[in-house]
Amino acid sequence: MDEDMLTLLGSCPVPFEDSTEVLLSHGSGGKLTADLIERLFLPAFRNPYLDRLDDQAVVPIDGIRLAFTTDSYVVTPIFFPGGDIGQLAVHGTVNDLAMSGAHPLYLSAAFILEEGLPLADLARIVASMREACTTAGVVLVTGDTKVVNRGSGDKIFINTSGVGRIEHGRVIAADQVRAGDLVILSGTIADHGMAVMSKREGLEFETEIRSDTAPLNSLVQTLLAGNPEIHCLRDPTRGGVATSLHEIARRAQVGIVLDERAIPVREEVKGACEILGIDPLYVANEGKLLAVVDRKDAAGVLERMRGHRYGQEAQMIGEVVGDHPGLVIMRTGIGGTRIVDVMLQEQLPRIC
Amino acid sequence: MDEDMLTLLGSCPVPFEDSTEVLLSHGSGGKLTADLIERLFLPAFRNPYLDRLDDQAVVPIDGIRLAFTTDSYVVTPIFFPGGDIGQLAVHGTVNDLAMSGAHPLYLSAAFILEEGLPLADLARIVASMREACTTAGVVLVTGDTKVVNRGSGDKIFINTSGVGRIEHGRVIAADQVRAGDLVILSGTIADHGMAVMSKREGLEFETEIRSDTAPLNSLVQTLLAGNPEIHCLRDPTRGGVATSLHEIARRAQVGIVLDERAIPVREEVKGACEILGIDPLYVANEGKLLAVVDRKDAAGVLERMRGHRYGQEAQMIGEVVGDHPGLVIMRTGIGGTRIVDVMLQEQLPRIC
Repeated sequence: MDEDMLTLLGSCPVPFEDSTEVLLSHGSGGKLTADLIERLFLPAFRNPYLDRLDDQAVVPIDGIRLAFTTDSYVVTPIFFPGGDIGQLAVHGTVNDLAMSGAHPLYLSAAFILEEGLPLADLARIVASMREACTTAGVVLVTGDTKVVNRGSGDKIFINTSGVGRIEHGRVIAADQVRAGDLVILSGTIADHGMAVMSKREGLEFETEIRSDTAPLNSLVQTLLAGNPEIHCLRDPTRGGVATSLHEIARRAQVGIVLDERAIPVREEVKGACEILGIDPLYVANEGKLLAVVDRKDAAGVLERMRGHRYGQEAQMIGEVVGDHPGLVIMRTGIGGTRIVDVMLQEQLPRIC
Repeated sequence: MDEDMLTLLGSCPVPFEDSTEVLLSHGSGGKLTADLIERLFLPAFRNPYLDRLDDQAVVPIDGIRLAFTTDSYVVTPIFFPGGDIGQLAVHGTVNDLAMSGAHPLYLSAAFILEEGLPLADLARIVASMREACTTAGVVLVTGDTKVVNRGSGDKIFINTSGVGRIEHGRVIAADQVRAGDLVILSGTIADHGMAVMSKREGLEFETEIRSDTAPLNSLVQTLLAGNPEIHCLRDPTRGGVATSLHEIARRAQVGIVLDERAIPVREEVKGACEILGIDPLYVANEGKLLAVVDRKDAAGVLERMRGHRYGQEAQMIGEVVGDHPGLVIMRTGIGGTRIVDVMLQEQLPRIC
């Protein structure tokens, strides 16, 4: 590690925010979420499946490798350009399963409705979930509905859980990543988060910013078809690309070096980020994935990705290094380097 | 059907409550919940697994029969005599899996936290979930945490989903029930609902009413050990014994006749129900099950049940008949009969 890097490291701000209460930042996907997981949830439930901290658990049942995942969706507003909470809930869980290389098969849906929600809104959300299930090729097999009194919820929260089957022989997980791997991003970043924020803040642009919400299971199957050495797949949702890469770097104890110029951001999204003072690297995506691939197979994976509907704008955005384990470093457009911090504050509450 | 019965049927009140908004009663487990499911959810997602409307879906994966279920918990208060929301969330999902005869294996937990929840409360709930998992022999393998701003939630909502494996060869489901079967109840009713309501309303009794929350998987395995013809198992949670039996009667197109004197209710629970004007038959239980069993095996099942910790006060409470399909009839203590109505109004919001 050169001296510049050491200077950077020395000045890296990691303030420690302690609280006796749940803060919005505990749900950000960033530092405080990690704290909550590592201090509270992991010690309580410690087991080899949970401890991996991947987007899904991979559990054995009678010789089958089953992927199992859960997510609750609390996005506000519930309808936004490019999608709605229902579609998001289906795609999110399909994607979490797909990131293990699993074929998503069955979904559950549990609704927490606030008294007073228009039934027409619920019907619209359900129709959207149905369409999303059909497109992704998953079957919603079980559900639950609870209603809370006015003021004890916010219109609608949806939990989806899902199971899928892993048919390939690999382990695709953060701890499989190693120095020398290359990092591929399937397309533009921050579309989802900025679509929601623009709607929430009433921002208007010449070109409407639309969520990228999409089911990524067919993209993953396309990538896996050539049996390349894909070590890790992540969909960079809450906390964005920065947070997903931090999790990988930390889990695999490697460094990651990104090339700022290679990371695609739409002009209108860049504009919205500037207005709101938000770094797009930390903004949620709902139809993108990061693939960390053995160097020898990276070009092939990139090519396949670009041939798929959801990977047309894919880019090679960085590499995995043995130096500075746990850190993500950005080579900036003007030739410098900076540390990509762990996200500390909640920038975008209730984005998914 | 005799004339008295026809008169009863003619006067059976089935007012139709239409609304353009979600009402608390849509979450009651009663008539409006069924409406929502049958008018909105089923038509949207129609498939042979969901259509069964059992407490869990039973889906095939590579020749294995997998049970899969989900429930969100929104009970208030979050701590109550005999349990808390965390324990309830584990037991509820374990029990829904067990009602198919499955061995519950893996659980997910997704938390929706309200900003400001004391972390000490969260820690207490998590510890309670851990203990409940250990006791039930399930492993919590994946999770999610979301935080909503103050006033957009209510302290904590927990979703648990679960998967389990069905090893026996039977189909245990509502549509397997047939005339001649006997109905066994594993113990006293209404303990959970009245524990929560008493706490909520600040009622005090000489003997504290405690929730019956318990994991029923080992009880189910005990019952199955003798390979009796158990046609259906249900844990009568929201909407109580009345609602579960209605679901069975409707699904199997049979009638059910109950013996009021056989249904065990603790004295203090009876007292609380009287004060609050609530029929214990409609009140949630969280550690009881209904077993509908072929007549020839019923005595054996009852005996096994009474030998288990969670079935000591089990009773034979009724029988399945070919008459009046879809209806539940009560033979009262004074020798008359009355129709046990479908629950129309929300009596006990947010009881689980």
